[in-house]
Amino acid sequence: MIKLIAMYRPPSDPAAFDEHYDSIHTPLVRKIPGLKKLEVTRMVGTPDRKAPAYYLMAQMYFENNDAFKAAMTSPENKAAGKDLMGFAGDIAEFLIGESEEDG
Amino acid sequence: MIKLIAMYRPPSDPAAFDEHYDSIHTPLVRKIPGLKKLEVTRMVGTPDRKAPAYYLMAQMYFENNDAFKAAMTSPENKAAGKDLMGFAGDIAEFLIGESEEDG
Repeated sequence: MIKLIAMYRPPSDPAAFDEHYDSIHTPLVRKIPGLKKLEVTRMVGTPDRKAPAYYLMAQMYFENNDAFKAAMTSPENKAAGKDLMGFAGDIAEFLIGESEEDG
Repeated sequence: MIKLIAMYRPPSDPAAFDEHYDSIHTPLVRKIPGLKKLEVTRMVGTPDRKAPAYYLMAQMYFENNDAFKAAMTSPENKAAGKDLMGFAGDIAEFLIGESEEDG
């Protein structure tokens, strides 16, 4: 599976971030064509009890490279990206990764 | 689900990293008690074609907080952690997160 990973550093106003993320941004992400799975991780700490470097991570999974490319160029992805830049453009970092999992 | 996330910045010798990671480190991680899922992501790029900030991410999932705490204090986790510090202590960052997914 290939995925887009969005990593958000801690927002200045976490409550406002959460509100926008949950009620506006995530519904836009769910519309991206070919999205097989969305996994949202909220950071709660680190093993050495330091402040986490990131606040939230979203992983958007696609079946293969063709589906990923089609998704990235879709109007729905552009809409989600535009929304993201408006509320979190200054704290977001992106990665593209290939994952394997085992139980 | 609660998980330990290990993020590795790009190693100076990727081939040596991969060899140790796959043949030595991952088998140690798989022994950690209560591990429900291990997902390993290898970074292949970024949307804007910059070099990815991270090389690899491992996500270790546990059923709940009690299972997580038991795992973190286990001899098997200590062995995996000791191994990690030896081959990647200078490039690894850790997060603890809670995740939700939907298909």
